[in-house]
Amino acid sequence: MKSFVKYPPNCDFPIENLPYGVFSTKRNLQKRIGVAIGDRILDLSAISHLFDGPLLRNNQDVFHRDCLNDFMALGRPSWLEARTKLQDLLSISNPTLQEINTHSKVFVEQNEATMHLPAKIGDYTDFYSSIHHATNVGTMFRGKENALMPNWKYLPVAYHGRASSVVVSGTPIRRPHGQTLPVEGAPPAFGPSRLMDFELEVAFFVGPPTNLGDAVSASKAYDHIFGMVAMNDWSARDIQKWEYVPLGPFGAKNFGTTISPWVVTMEALQPFKVPNVPQDPTPFPYLQHSEPCNFDIKLEVDIKTPNGIVTTVCRSNYKYQYWTPRQQLAHHTVTGCNINPGDLMASGTISGEADDSYGSMLELSWKGTRPIPLKDGTNRKFLQDGDEVIIRGYCLGDGYRIGFGPCSGKLLPPITQ
Amino acid sequence: MKSFVKYPPNCDFPIENLPYGVFSTKRNLQKRIGVAIGDRILDLSAISHLFDGPLLRNNQDVFHRDCLNDFMALGRPSWLEARTKLQDLLSISNPTLQEINTHSKVFVEQNEATMHLPAKIGDYTDFYSSIHHATNVGTMFRGKENALMPNWKYLPVAYHGRASSVVVSGTPIRRPHGQTLPVEGAPPAFGPSRLMDFELEVAFFVGPPTNLGDAVSASKAYDHIFGMVAMNDWSARDIQKWEYVPLGPFGAKNFGTTISPWVVTMEALQPFKVPNVPQDPTPFPYLQHSEPCNFDIKLEVDIKTPNGIVTTVCRSNYKYQYWTPRQQLAHHTVTGCNINPGDLMASGTISGEADDSYGSMLELSWKGTRPIPLKDGTNRKFLQDGDEVIIRGYCLGDGYRIGFGPCSGKLLPPITQ
Repeated sequence: MKSFVKYPPNCDFPIENLPYGVFSTKRNLQKRIGVAIGDRILDLSAISHLFDGPLLRNNQDVFHRDCLNDFMALGRPSWLEARTKLQDLLSISNPTLQEINTHSKVFVEQNEATMHLPAKIGDYTDFYSSIHHATNVGTMFRGKENALMPNWKYLPVAYHGRASSVVVSGTPIRRPHGQTLPVEGAPPAFGPSRLMDFELEVAFFVGPPTNLGDAVSASKAYDHIFGMVAMNDWSARDIQKWEYVPLGPFGAKNFGTTISPWVVTMEALQPFKVPNVPQDPTPFPYLQHSEPCNFDIKLEVDIKTPNGIVTTVCRSNYKYQYWTPRQQLAHHTVTGCNINPGDLMASGTISGEADDSYGSMLELSWKGTRPIPLKDGTNRKFLQDGDEVIIRGYCLGDGYRIGFGPCSGKLLPPITQ
Repeated sequence: MKSFVKYPPNCDFPIENLPYGVFSTKRNLQKRIGVAIGDRILDLSAISHLFDGPLLRNNQDVFHRDCLNDFMALGRPSWLEARTKLQDLLSISNPTLQEINTHSKVFVEQNEATMHLPAKIGDYTDFYSSIHHATNVGTMFRGKENALMPNWKYLPVAYHGRASSVVVSGTPIRRPHGQTLPVEGAPPAFGPSRLMDFELEVAFFVGPPTNLGDAVSASKAYDHIFGMVAMNDWSARDIQKWEYVPLGPFGAKNFGTTISPWVVTMEALQPFKVPNVPQDPTPFPYLQHSEPCNFDIKLEVDIKTPNGIVTTVCRSNYKYQYWTPRQQLAHHTVTGCNINPGDLMASGTISGEADDSYGSMLELSWKGTRPIPLKDGTNRKFLQDGDEVIIRGYCLGDGYRIGFGPCSGKLLPPITQ
């Protein structure tokens, strides 16, 4: 497959990828849907009439929205039709777009675009599906004996997160105020969090909705999974530790969650399927699926200090997930909980086995006991004001790369209250 | 104050109340905004031109929406202007509406209307603010020693709930499937929940939004509180017990949450203000407010068995809340979490001190050890299929009553999976 749009082999957005996003430009402030190709964006609102296949020809209006929800709602057969059409239109042998582009501008340079949230996120759920992360954090917070709770290997543990504060890459995040317990047994203190952290995650967007009362088994869950983004679930560890019993994380997480702007489709990820992680005990039937739904997505976390120097502090991989996205969606709906297009379901922190594959500062510095050296000569136990956290995800194919584009955010100092 | 619309003294919706809701009729399926008065609904979409005050005359379009979010966003000065106008228009001395109604139908009978969710709920948060409830449940799940967690009296504990499954009164709820642990130490089981429960709650809707990074102190939080509804936070106790550690309730709650359709404004509740519950230790400054923000709202829970016989199983009161709505909103935003019009923040189960004031079957039957006799001769430890739970809230004024209207839902048998 070769496109008339030129890009180097290490480009995140070759013709094999074609992730969807929502963008605007200075000359046209209207938010619109686009597809990334090379260093350009193909404006789908300008070429919606070209989607003339049997499923999309009566649904071209979905490409005129300011978010992807309506396209997500159409389901996989429509997504496949769109992908096939886009790969055809962008191929070097097809003159259509090249001709149209001489009359009206259907391509926009990515560096001239402002990216927005790809969807209106009705509900955001965060899972806790990496066994290495759960074991690490459990050991630190509750001791080795209680590290993995008895339920952990039976169900994909999750909590409902805050949808309003999910922001797109590039949005700065303020260090939050909150209550913490600096001295065990003494009264709590109030002030800016002192233990600011990132969490390396990958999240998927939900496609077609379900009705309240309906359950989707893991074997059928794939129909509802549109695509994936990289995510930073910013966390205030000291607030979390004081508040989280008995109802889970609240203020420690609700001040901001960053996602990458481009939604990489499940179709683009198919060549990178790897076997599911073996599960013992065998899960209940509603969580069983024979098809692999695990992916070799390389994940990296950089810290860019205020002086501009970048250090990669973590190299992990999506494949370390114990529970698959199918199982996550099945468990979410087994009670009859309804899901909607644009709902976001995140993996939880993805840590590998090796010390340098841990997906949070909490684990990398082992609760602040092992400072992490940075390339600028300083070191970090947790994040400092002015630090920018950049998460990157990519799959390496034969001569091409399926990238997620950066998921970044800078930590700002707290507001004086 | 007297209206030309006639109603008995025990009517939920006198001219002193004027709650807002969203309705449709068989003859006009369009969802529209109305105000309840007696047994009628005043259709605000039909009289939006009458809102000619300085704040609303350029915002009449908010009354043409299919939800209250835009009206909620306007803020208290606009809400007050609307209320004053409505009380004037509905007063016995004002002929305007009576004349209009002869030409075009601006009133609809409540029994001819279908009620819908009053707002698009972006995020739903559930607090845990009744000290009696927290103590009761804590005692049962973690023993008397650990009943109230160390953080409980320092901050209003809360968790993010599922917004998609918040439904309007009258919507049936299916008994959910899920994992439970019937025998401690043995492997879990999968099947329909056996311990279905209600939770008696009251929730408030958020008005004007805040920006990410901004905090609202308790002293200023009232500006963001639009009004209140009665709520049933359906709970599957056996699922909850197995899943809730360490990240809180998930599937035990996400299959359905019922709210009453009429949003009672804070203005209507003002005459029923009572002192805040004394708090010791003194909360941090961001949680302090001198003005009372507690209300004498009588709350009752009925169980209507399939044979139609009704038993009132609980008589509680909103005033038992330890943390006020101002404190809840202040704690929610202290981290910089942004809030939006239509966000829903619930009290948590409201239990009083007396045995018959407990707001859940879990507490009323003390974990199933004290069966509750019903008027039809049966008894209940938890809910049975076909039981309808009806929550009622009302304030008693001098010769009038501010009612919430019923918040009801019938428990359906589980779907065969």
